[in-house]
Amino acid sequence: MSGPGVESAAASILQRGVDLDNKRRYTEALVCYQEGLQLLVNILKNVTDSGKKTYLRSKVEGYMSRAERLKKVIEEEKDAGKYHEQIHIESDSTGHSYRAVFGRFLDEEVTRVDVEDPYIRTFHQCQNLLRLSELLVKSCSNLRSICLLTSVDGSSRDQAQWLDAIKQNLQVYKVTLTVQFSDTLHDRQIKLSNGWVIKIGRGLDYFKPPIGKFCLGLFDLDLRQCHETTVDIFHSKDVKMLWG
Amino acid sequence: MSGPGVESAAASILQRGVDLDNKRRYTEALVCYQEGLQLLVNILKNVTDSGKKTYLRSKVEGYMSRAERLKKVIEEEKDAGKYHEQIHIESDSTGHSYRAVFGRFLDEEVTRVDVEDPYIRTFHQCQNLLRLSELLVKSCSNLRSICLLTSVDGSSRDQAQWLDAIKQNLQVYKVTLTVQFSDTLHDRQIKLSNGWVIKIGRGLDYFKPPIGKFCLGLFDLDLRQCHETTVDIFHSKDVKMLWG
Repeated sequence: MSGPGVESAAASILQRGVDLDNKRRYTEALVCYQEGLQLLVNILKNVTDSGKKTYLRSKVEGYMSRAERLKKVIEEEKDAGKYHEQIHIESDSTGHSYRAVFGRFLDEEVTRVDVEDPYIRTFHQCQNLLRLSELLVKSCSNLRSICLLTSVDGSSRDQAQWLDAIKQNLQVYKVTLTVQFSDTLHDRQIKLSNGWVIKIGRGLDYFKPPIGKFCLGLFDLDLRQCHETTVDIFHSKDVKMLWG
Repeated sequence: MSGPGVESAAASILQRGVDLDNKRRYTEALVCYQEGLQLLVNILKNVTDSGKKTYLRSKVEGYMSRAERLKKVIEEEKDAGKYHEQIHIESDSTGHSYRAVFGRFLDEEVTRVDVEDPYIRTFHQCQNLLRLSELLVKSCSNLRSICLLTSVDGSSRDQAQWLDAIKQNLQVYKVTLTVQFSDTLHDRQIKLSNGWVIKIGRGLDYFKPPIGKFCLGLFDLDLRQCHETTVDIFHSKDVKMLWG
């Protein structure tokens, strides 16, 4: 749909692109540039004033060439095995669902996902894994396996049941969930078979609990306040070899 | 991101556009054409073979002119007050979250949403309203009020508490929820202040219950199986006047 706010929406998303670009959060900046450009191009189609047309065209060209340059930078750094991007999630901030944080790396090239997270133990932590599974199944059409490495919850037998329920449910989507346990694991990371590695300081459990069962953010994690945490994103060409 | 599957993804989304177009589900067809064209244009940039380039360009032009024509048809029928589109949701089918069914009509022009639905009474039905509220708050940046007309659950006092909790939570987003009760209400409809009216035969409650707390689809309604229901979508220019 369209409306009077489309132009300001384009300006604000492109500005967000520039901010992210300055912070070297290139893959996010690229998404903003692409979305903003799409809006600008749509606006341009309906502009008749020639001065405004020229102005908007120069904006489109500027952002387009920056987006092309960014793509090259990302590819070069990926090839050199040194791509690194950092996101700082502030305490109480919102807009950081799994999709928002790393949805842009999920595509049909991903066939396997390795989740290392010592805290997939309690009810809500196992539900975090369920939410991740929903996102992966929807975004990665060729996904065949999820391998979870976590630690055992010695105080209860529920963890095994919950993980088993997720496993049964994933089979409907032809995805095999494998669970392994470690009592020395500390690192949290999500490795995608297309080479992207997402390290979230707190693992999947970086959301504050909802205030009640009728609180906005109960279902949509973009509306849920977060704990402070840092996200590091790497690309490793060698990730497939390491799995050999 | 890109990959070998992008071309088949473009073909499949464009085919879906054609199917929807044939069923006169024009607003959905338009979304498919736009998404498919975006993919085709990206592919085209990297094609060097001149024969393939010509072929893809003709495809782009064909779909683009159909998309432009569709936009005109939708506008003309909206202006004439006779736009009507019907979606049939089949039993056990998936992919019908509120966002999928009517997210394309939610934008910054929507300031008020009227929900008429006699069955916002039980726990899961009130949670349906919560999910709708999450979607509206995220998609309609100028939303100021949601007006619910439903029926009283005579057997319990919980309904009032649940609705009140949603009301409190919506205030954080500067949205006022007004609840009115009727014991004669039968119709289910969602009226948006931009003129779109969505009538779902079963109201908001068209999803089958999840099989357990660790079932894919518990959070993401696109993965939840549905009851059979019909969705009628109208556009009424006069909707604002009727509220006068």
